[in-house]
Amino acid sequence: MPERIEADYIIETSDDPRRAAEAAAGEQSSGTFVPVPGETPELKQRSAARIEALDLLETVSTPSLPGSAGTPPDGHFQRARVTLSWPLDNLGPSLPNLVATVAGNLFELKQFSGLRLLDIRLPDAFGGAYPGPKFGIVGTRRLAGVHQRPIVGTIVKPSVGFGPAETANLTQTMCEAGLDFIKDDELQSDGPHCPFDDRARAVMRVVNEHADRTGRKVMFAFNITGEIDQMRRRHDLVLKLGGTCVMASLNSVGLVGMIELGRFSQLPIHAHRNGWGYLSRAPMLGWSYIAWQKIWRLAGADHMHVNGLANKFSEPDDSVIASARECLTPMFADKPCLAMPVFSSGQSAKQVPPTYAALGSADLIFAAGGGIMAHPGGPAAGVAALREAWDTTLRNAPSAASADFGPVEAKAS
Amino acid sequence: MPERIEADYIIETSDDPRRAAEAAAGEQSSGTFVPVPGETPELKQRSAARIEALDLLETVSTPSLPGSAGTPPDGHFQRARVTLSWPLDNLGPSLPNLVATVAGNLFELKQFSGLRLLDIRLPDAFGGAYPGPKFGIVGTRRLAGVHQRPIVGTIVKPSVGFGPAETANLTQTMCEAGLDFIKDDELQSDGPHCPFDDRARAVMRVVNEHADRTGRKVMFAFNITGEIDQMRRRHDLVLKLGGTCVMASLNSVGLVGMIELGRFSQLPIHAHRNGWGYLSRAPMLGWSYIAWQKIWRLAGADHMHVNGLANKFSEPDDSVIASARECLTPMFADKPCLAMPVFSSGQSAKQVPPTYAALGSADLIFAAGGGIMAHPGGPAAGVAALREAWDTTLRNAPSAASADFGPVEAKAS
Repeated sequence: MPERIEADYIIETSDDPRRAAEAAAGEQSSGTFVPVPGETPELKQRSAARIEALDLLETVSTPSLPGSAGTPPDGHFQRARVTLSWPLDNLGPSLPNLVATVAGNLFELKQFSGLRLLDIRLPDAFGGAYPGPKFGIVGTRRLAGVHQRPIVGTIVKPSVGFGPAETANLTQTMCEAGLDFIKDDELQSDGPHCPFDDRARAVMRVVNEHADRTGRKVMFAFNITGEIDQMRRRHDLVLKLGGTCVMASLNSVGLVGMIELGRFSQLPIHAHRNGWGYLSRAPMLGWSYIAWQKIWRLAGADHMHVNGLANKFSEPDDSVIASARECLTPMFADKPCLAMPVFSSGQSAKQVPPTYAALGSADLIFAAGGGIMAHPGGPAAGVAALREAWDTTLRNAPSAASADFGPVEAKAS
Repeated sequence: MPERIEADYIIETSDDPRRAAEAAAGEQSSGTFVPVPGETPELKQRSAARIEALDLLETVSTPSLPGSAGTPPDGHFQRARVTLSWPLDNLGPSLPNLVATVAGNLFELKQFSGLRLLDIRLPDAFGGAYPGPKFGIVGTRRLAGVHQRPIVGTIVKPSVGFGPAETANLTQTMCEAGLDFIKDDELQSDGPHCPFDDRARAVMRVVNEHADRTGRKVMFAFNITGEIDQMRRRHDLVLKLGGTCVMASLNSVGLVGMIELGRFSQLPIHAHRNGWGYLSRAPMLGWSYIAWQKIWRLAGADHMHVNGLANKFSEPDDSVIASARECLTPMFADKPCLAMPVFSSGQSAKQVPPTYAALGSADLIFAAGGGIMAHPGGPAAGVAALREAWDTTLRNAPSAASADFGPVEAKAS
């Protein structure tokens, strides 16, 4: 792990790429656009961000984003991959201040017609300062009682409209269908028609009765998204009722709220990424998932949504797989912070073989909505079909040892 | 104010625009892509999002974003302005859940090659549920002791590298130069070389001594960006030391953290928007500032950064002015939630006349860095030049009563 904070970007500029990268490094550290009293070479030496690498990529004839300064002399905008680094001592191991440093006033600089954060690498001090996932893969598997295969899940639909009793009824159907995992929709937290406390009580009565009968407690991820006190109170209620998971929307709660949740939670945190599109869909702007998910894992997210193969959204399959593999890649030598990737969005048995072939791991949550609930043979047949697809796929797979990410409970956080 | 939550979007699609808008409305309310048990017409009627308006705009031949489904039959992608609405009872007056509703899993839908949130309108219940700015324009003016003209400010530069003593020395220079307002840089909160507590004590000693001598307490916005407990402790220290403002980076703290800060703060909150570029710079993706700033004002932001005319970033002037005017536009009849717009980024006396001409209000913070510190006559001459530019501009202005946003202390929150 580096002693300095490192961030990789793809940039696009009409300027000389090194000069543009220097402007970004200056803006995000000790640079001033006019000399000011007290500025010294020693101070600059100690605090300045550095360009660690700069590799030219292709040129393009049209700027990706509006508002950049001037037109290039030869009519082409140069793209480059740049690594900047900062001394840890500029900010200390603080996630909120890290975000202002690596993803602050950069994207608007008129030197750039494109700038996207691709990856970040953090000194070990960050691993020491934050809890990371408290449950991760091992803890989630223990609580869900599912081993050596993916956790098969579904979602409460319709997203909004159901009251507590209807949600509990659907939960009953889902438990009986053999699901391992059920999640609230991200649109339903504590709506007046479906108050959180009533829903949690009604659902956990069903889940607990089913556990008493069968010995298996289905993991229900309750959407506790709300203000700090609300999340704390809802978390405590879920814990008291014997629940085994809470869910929160990352972009609704935000970083400091998620850090707080990560510190107090005694249950796995199912992190929903709704809104991710506005951070990522313009290819030359915003965040890559590779960089973004590291922030949330360190803050304590146990499960991270990664979309799914052949999904209903705009994301290509290779991006989905790269995201999922990253969640299963250690962040620090002493603190891997592994999170369980959650595959969802239009998933069915069809996507099972290609998902495993591409990921090489069974450490995932595989969530299907319509693929289960609308199965011609009913929900139980839908679950059975998914389980069967996974069993067959895993049985036919090359041995675990040969897979890059093969059954990895041993290396879980 | 509407009884339902309303959101305006610009969309771009290869599909029929109404069908695409219906997909978005379904995704963000009671839609399911296959029928599920328990779904009823009554439930849909009660909870479904509605299309309130759909106006066709221009067509384009190239999709703005990758990943949309298919190519249009005539080779053109249709843009449209769409208003969706939701029953308040789907979520209740909850800002975090509002964000998941109006800005959740929409931007990735493959029906769209572009989708941007333009504006939101909220039922009065939101105004009742959140504090809004506790100080706003009137409270900030009272604490800063500045009336009938903009608050003239500057920033501690270099952003990082200074320790507490150097920051205090610079503050001394700035106080003596006649500034009304000084802010920490967004990159400096509690770095090991510039610990927050030491900096706050050293700076407030200077500010308080200056106030004892002159009767005027310069407003210093201390960057308290950090975790909840850190922000609370830092806020309390600033308050105890006699400070009059705290600052936080919106995209670092996030919504739930800012709501918490808004609830406990006894000082004006100076809200920094660093990172705004990644949310907004792609014209057919993300958030408009008009929609975005409403969330933060409701959460309690007293000062909102809006960039400045002829700035060093990529934003055009008309966008800057639209943002600033919006901060001065009431959100609710009984609760205007006005925030003071903060003009900054490459500002000097040159921008004063066009800023007032375009905004028609003196209710703003006008922050200049190099324009003050690098003035040929020294910082005091730099401040004097700015003050003189504003005095002249306001003296020559048409009467306050005739300006749309003329001196508005009377209508402040």
